[in-house]
Amino acid sequence: MTSRYGPFKAAKVGPGDDCAVLEGDDRLLLLTIDTLVDGVHFDLASLGWRALGHMALAVNLSDIAAMAGEPLAAVISTAFPAKVTREEAELFADGVASCAVRWDAEIVGGDTVRSPVAAVTIALLGTVEPERVCLRSAARPGDKLFVTGTLGRREGARRMGEHLPVTPRLKEARALSASGVRCMIDLSDGLAADLRHVLEASGVGAIVDAAAVPVDEMTVKAAKAEGIDALSLALTGGDDYELLFTAPDAVAGAISKLAQKLGAAVTLIGEITASKEALLKTAEGKLLPLPEGGWDHFK
Amino acid sequence: MTSRYGPFKAAKVGPGDDCAVLEGDDRLLLLTIDTLVDGVHFDLASLGWRALGHMALAVNLSDIAAMAGEPLAAVISTAFPAKVTREEAELFADGVASCAVRWDAEIVGGDTVRSPVAAVTIALLGTVEPERVCLRSAARPGDKLFVTGTLGRREGARRMGEHLPVTPRLKEARALSASGVRCMIDLSDGLAADLRHVLEASGVGAIVDAAAVPVDEMTVKAAKAEGIDALSLALTGGDDYELLFTAPDAVAGAISKLAQKLGAAVTLIGEITASKEALLKTAEGKLLPLPEGGWDHFK
Repeated sequence: MTSRYGPFKAAKVGPGDDCAVLEGDDRLLLLTIDTLVDGVHFDLASLGWRALGHMALAVNLSDIAAMAGEPLAAVISTAFPAKVTREEAELFADGVASCAVRWDAEIVGGDTVRSPVAAVTIALLGTVEPERVCLRSAARPGDKLFVTGTLGRREGARRMGEHLPVTPRLKEARALSASGVRCMIDLSDGLAADLRHVLEASGVGAIVDAAAVPVDEMTVKAAKAEGIDALSLALTGGDDYELLFTAPDAVAGAISKLAQKLGAAVTLIGEITASKEALLKTAEGKLLPLPEGGWDHFK
Repeated sequence: MTSRYGPFKAAKVGPGDDCAVLEGDDRLLLLTIDTLVDGVHFDLASLGWRALGHMALAVNLSDIAAMAGEPLAAVISTAFPAKVTREEAELFADGVASCAVRWDAEIVGGDTVRSPVAAVTIALLGTVEPERVCLRSAARPGDKLFVTGTLGRREGARRMGEHLPVTPRLKEARALSASGVRCMIDLSDGLAADLRHVLEASGVGAIVDAAAVPVDEMTVKAAKAEGIDALSLALTGGDDYELLFTAPDAVAGAISKLAQKLGAAVTLIGEITASKEALLKTAEGKLLPLPEGGWDHFK
């Protein structure tokens, strides 16, 4: 494997998945980085410093979850304007700390710089057993397609003026990989966009069953209030941080029992196909192209 | 070891050194992060995109060098304004790539976000043999104090309107640690500030011999042009990215031969003391407090 930056020796999986995968001695190393910028990824005035700290780590933990990994250690770089007070910085650190303690990630260092606009970058190192790593490229025709939780929840909440903390699905991902799941992604850009990442990486297609999509109640409310379609909000709304995964029949059969045991909602929403198309099967049985788009950080 | 973020299990050295140190199986893992912000750490208009890419990785490599480590893999987060063209982004990536190939660091992933102000964050993972890691906390009274290269070079160049690429002292650091050096820091904030980091971490003091400080020619020129003192520019100028290290007598004796072999300038500039003070011995033999300050990112 190679890239513009040179040949890969340490990297087993380079750019393009939720995390890079590096050869460790027993376990693979996972390395991921995420930046959140005020006014682009969050609105500091309404979010608040504590919630920002929690969110900045949680979105990275979600990337480790998507590989079925376990968090090891993180470094944090804060780029804050000079007007940020000590109290605000403390609130931010409290938010990071609560998330770190909850999910067993060690904050081992960082960098503190001045910037005219507030931005936070966290790089998180995790580990995973080589035989359990879940990649975007592992979907195969005939696999069943599942999603955890409900969709469009955070997009719906945002439209209702609410912020919901991100819960990385680390526990669920570990249990799924233990059951044989090998293809997974976390939903950060919306189902339609993130499913396409899986399809492209795996060289396959999918049919999503519209009637099966677990549209969140917040999404239904927000869509109703705005007079728009709840399903398309659920398919394209970003920041769900749920897991989208595939499983061959032999594994898929055990998923609903596993979900019960975990106390987690897991829904069968479709199937992987050989066609390379992303399709939506309507309640009437019609096959339409899955809506384009999803959360666009550049909009 | 513990922190506000919880107890450390993976971390052998947490925040406060050039890199965090994590337990690997054979080798320790080193993790570091650095953010560069336009208008704070660089002036994009005069620096250019290619040089920015090189610099962003090189300053992280310098942190790995300071621990006597070897780079393994990096993730890059770019926060660029929407007006940045594809060509500019390509130049940036070229700059990163040239540095990555030169120093054998794999770029394994990243994040690309929009931001009103250009900023780059790189997190770099490295490794080091447990018996060779160099820490800020390992200086002992009686150790000799050394520095590689010349001081104030980049501060001098900046004042003359020039940008000099950063050369991380990875090779030198590896050779020094092989010779028994165990206390090292890279000079990013200026000798006066970075020496104080070593003294604080080690609970010791130091006397720097003013006549021995290898003041760079660029610094001498810039100081002359501005009518200021070249030595104090060399002591407080940031961004040298040279190595400051200490060595007990048994090791110090072999340093100059090692430097010759490496083709590197290494200068004995003083000694570690038990007094906890940072002092400057003038050419006349007077002991003065070492100038405060150094490169202040918040100025």
